[in-house]
Amino acid sequence: MTTQQLIEQIKAKKSFLCIGLDVDLNKIPQHLLATEDPIFEFNKAIIDATHHLCVSYKPNTAFYEAYGLKGWKSLERTIQYLNTNYPEIFTIADAKRGDIGNTSTMYAKAFLEDLAFDSVTVAPYMGKDSVEPFLAFKDKHTIMLALTSNKGAFDFQVLETDGQELYKQVLETSKSWDNSDNLMYVVGATKAEYFKEIRKIVPNSFLLVPGVGVQGGNIQDVCKYGMSAENIGLLINSSRGIIYAGTDDKFAAAAAGKAKELQVQMEEILNS
Amino acid sequence: MTTQQLIEQIKAKKSFLCIGLDVDLNKIPQHLLATEDPIFEFNKAIIDATHHLCVSYKPNTAFYEAYGLKGWKSLERTIQYLNTNYPEIFTIADAKRGDIGNTSTMYAKAFLEDLAFDSVTVAPYMGKDSVEPFLAFKDKHTIMLALTSNKGAFDFQVLETDGQELYKQVLETSKSWDNSDNLMYVVGATKAEYFKEIRKIVPNSFLLVPGVGVQGGNIQDVCKYGMSAENIGLLINSSRGIIYAGTDDKFAAAAAGKAKELQVQMEEILNS
Repeated sequence: MTTQQLIEQIKAKKSFLCIGLDVDLNKIPQHLLATEDPIFEFNKAIIDATHHLCVSYKPNTAFYEAYGLKGWKSLERTIQYLNTNYPEIFTIADAKRGDIGNTSTMYAKAFLEDLAFDSVTVAPYMGKDSVEPFLAFKDKHTIMLALTSNKGAFDFQVLETDGQELYKQVLETSKSWDNSDNLMYVVGATKAEYFKEIRKIVPNSFLLVPGVGVQGGNIQDVCKYGMSAENIGLLINSSRGIIYAGTDDKFAAAAAGKAKELQVQMEEILNS
Repeated sequence: MTTQQLIEQIKAKKSFLCIGLDVDLNKIPQHLLATEDPIFEFNKAIIDATHHLCVSYKPNTAFYEAYGLKGWKSLERTIQYLNTNYPEIFTIADAKRGDIGNTSTMYAKAFLEDLAFDSVTVAPYMGKDSVEPFLAFKDKHTIMLALTSNKGAFDFQVLETDGQELYKQVLETSKSWDNSDNLMYVVGATKAEYFKEIRKIVPNSFLLVPGVGVQGGNIQDVCKYGMSAENIGLLINSSRGIIYAGTDDKFAAAAAGKAKELQVQMEEILNS
């Protein structure tokens, strides 16, 4: 998917919502456990009920790997279901990978080619040659961690390095990498005041923003400082706040209700 | 496995060699492609031929994920084979994971509990709460990236942060985390001169050292500056240099030959 197609979808749906599919078998409605593939059945119901309210789904690979072969199969079925039935959706493999060049190439192939996600999240610590293999895929996107939404973000990401915080250095440096047009960045919503600084470095890049909802972030603040005048440039993610809104057989409708609340806020912001 | 058991194995085998099982179907002997699970058959042959020469095996998860469900199955069979037949071996899931706390818990469970690896590699960028969930597992080990062996290591890892390079800050900070006794670190062999500095910060921690062989590092230099007087403290990894030593039906013997060359060098160093 091209960035332009993503922007058009946002304008059409009046939403820049991403729904995180972080499926924990202990938290899904218990009647689903009787099905052959509970994780996929859960995802399918959530997707069918919410696809018109969001522009993106983001399965976090940890939640699938935790169930071994069965989990990996559920991930495959989920992305195939999305690509077949809702090809307009921007899909994100939230994998946070990164390794030496030949290994990153294997990861990139796995997520962007074989599973055919539109994008994958990566970690920056190993630098340019660990990320460029992902950037080489045409019309695919690489979403690099910049400033994350957890407490541990303050351990290293905000350390002063050569006069500016590490996360700014990461943003700045990455702009010079091959195919850097394919870069997006993860920036946590719990630190809305940082968006102003970030937009000075990457004025138009898309930012994937976790931390709204359970983690405490606020959409209005994020948009005030983080929205790009030119191309919107935001994907705001909510996972647990949406997918676990209900616990009975009406869980998908409950999720759609929560997604609608966020979409309405986004529509107001886009209209203003 | 406890650290003490690892040290005893090193002393018994006179080896601190780790063999990286980074299996690429394009590089393995072509006659294996006719078998049902070529990756596992390759690993099994390599393991059977080399287990007395090394103390550790390190499958890099990228090479398994690249083959989807089949690859994940090969990874499961490989770790099961190791745990069943060679329980003395220290196993490393080279996964370089790291995410917010509840997600890192899922990864830790996947690799340390379900697959039952002795250890897993993690990335430090997201800080304390992204790594501590791994450290919580008793007699398991978390191997965190400090200074990697690739060119991109120079992009961020050696930036000056508050008076010392980032990788030193990572080492220093991590010592205060809960269960930090379970930490080991990745330090690339291509930068042997750095080991002296690293040993000032973590005098006794085990260091997993990639970059020997194809990437150009040298065992003598690494040991001169990196060996711990108290507990050896080194696992030196070689992947491609060993496993692809042969390309015909004698590939396992060829791999054993290369492993033996390294083991002999290690024995000399341990005896001196």
